[in-house]
Amino acid sequence: MNEPTEILDRRRNVTVVGAGVIGASWTALFLSQGLRVVVNDPRPDAETAVKRDIAKIAPVLAALGLPHEDLAENLRFEPDLERAVENADVVQENGPERIDFKQELWERIERRVSPEVLLLSSSSARTATEQASRMTRRAGRLLIGHPFNPPHLIPLVEIVPGERTELAAVAEAVAFYRALGKTALVLRKEIPGFVANRLQRALFRECVHLVGEGVVTADELDEIVTSSIGLRWAADGPFRSFHLGGGPGGFPAFFKQFAASMDAAWKNQPTVRLDQAAQDLVIAQADASFGTIPYEQLEDERAARQIAVLRALDAVKTT
Amino acid sequence: MNEPTEILDRRRNVTVVGAGVIGASWTALFLSQGLRVVVNDPRPDAETAVKRDIAKIAPVLAALGLPHEDLAENLRFEPDLERAVENADVVQENGPERIDFKQELWERIERRVSPEVLLLSSSSARTATEQASRMTRRAGRLLIGHPFNPPHLIPLVEIVPGERTELAAVAEAVAFYRALGKTALVLRKEIPGFVANRLQRALFRECVHLVGEGVVTADELDEIVTSSIGLRWAADGPFRSFHLGGGPGGFPAFFKQFAASMDAAWKNQPTVRLDQAAQDLVIAQADASFGTIPYEQLEDERAARQIAVLRALDAVKTT
Repeated sequence: MNEPTEILDRRRNVTVVGAGVIGASWTALFLSQGLRVVVNDPRPDAETAVKRDIAKIAPVLAALGLPHEDLAENLRFEPDLERAVENADVVQENGPERIDFKQELWERIERRVSPEVLLLSSSSARTATEQASRMTRRAGRLLIGHPFNPPHLIPLVEIVPGERTELAAVAEAVAFYRALGKTALVLRKEIPGFVANRLQRALFRECVHLVGEGVVTADELDEIVTSSIGLRWAADGPFRSFHLGGGPGGFPAFFKQFAASMDAAWKNQPTVRLDQAAQDLVIAQADASFGTIPYEQLEDERAARQIAVLRALDAVKTT
Repeated sequence: MNEPTEILDRRRNVTVVGAGVIGASWTALFLSQGLRVVVNDPRPDAETAVKRDIAKIAPVLAALGLPHEDLAENLRFEPDLERAVENADVVQENGPERIDFKQELWERIERRVSPEVLLLSSSSARTATEQASRMTRRAGRLLIGHPFNPPHLIPLVEIVPGERTELAAVAEAVAFYRALGKTALVLRKEIPGFVANRLQRALFRECVHLVGEGVVTADELDEIVTSSIGLRWAADGPFRSFHLGGGPGGFPAFFKQFAASMDAAWKNQPTVRLDQAAQDLVIAQADASFGTIPYEQLEDERAARQIAVLRALDAVKTT
């Protein structure tokens, strides 16, 4: 079983389009796995910014047990889009979330790439079907490969094919991301926001409601989450957790006890708005608590905790 | 600072009312902290059941670095309620979630306990104000101390005072739970379902929607959660996470980019019901995946993972 190596051999040349936070993180991960990366971004400071980001990411890769030295050896910058994608086996796109921008981008890219290329969009907002609407040649090779920030650290990549995506491209994308160590999950249907962000939005709605009602402050709510459901859902997803919540009777027992009150709560949901007042309240509470801690420190602490959790779960991995 | 020991000295005698899963878990934790526990439950098999549960919990306490030997030494069973609470410094109630049951229970208990007693309800559904409605003597001592299952393992205890709860009782309950190593958070307002369960319900609503729409199966959704937001929220709560999601600009930058689409999604939420059809679908998908794994094995795996995460986060604790 040397399949992981085999696919990375066939997909050695990756073009990263868009060198923001996500693009730089993908770049670091690809480089650490021995891939050759061309970064394309019209910003004049792209090279400086990406190299600075990679220097920050290298210690995280080291902590995850991944190669992290001399990452820039296989890194090249090419501000011209057509030249940047010319020899690409994979394109990972991380541009602005404007649909006209993406449609034009793929229209330009498809003219220059080989039939076997993988065209992957990190978009969290635009489906592959929408993005491909002006494509006439390589729409079958375009699909969503949506990472969870930061991509070099969080395992999930949501794979969402569009209406015209070839099955072979889906299988190849799954193999590619898995060879990179990611948890690649294929959604069975296109849906706006995909899965993980929709779940975040649903939970955050209730967070804003509770803070708006004065039940807790933002940092109290955060402490409630990390000391209960965060821990729970790092170990087991919500379905398995509630199955266990039913005791040996599983979901039938759980539903017998809780379905009626849950259904009633879903029916009588309060209206929650993220209007200016709600935003101001959250901003004020953030300013008064974790907002006082420097951003870089918060980022470092997050990385330390996420790495610790990942390694701990890896050490007790069962199924 | 030997306050933790001091309060456990003053609160040595605990009566656990209701010996189900939650009651047994509290019992094991109290015993491991050197408290004397009287368990009250009319079930004839209460003693057998609690002792069996404690034997299962002991290895988990050991893994958490807590005392776990000879736990039953300070354990007594008393099926008569009045006698069971006679010398109690603390009562932790875990009875059925029927309001009339609880109201009558506290009415009986308040006649027998000292003025300084702490009356704590594990209820997840009934506020202290409701539960205390028939109390005439010790309503000031009654409040919610709602754990997250299993209480011996998950840190959170939500403390929710009722309209008549004395501030001194709230402070004492916080000190008591913290001395036991729990993360005790006081809610600023009574609200049905409290905080953690409301957040679970909000997320689960979207889970049921996504499975109902055929976007993912239950076990695929679980894998998405454990490999993304579970890990994220074990490390940082949702507010701090989105503050970081805004980059160095924090929440203002985050809202600028995402508030409009989030608000639109909140306004146009699909109707989701937990009716029989939805329940049947979840049960069928659970049966086809993790439902095939024996319950005890799932429980052991959950404990192993949660312990691993707790210890890992403890080792990198910063603030």
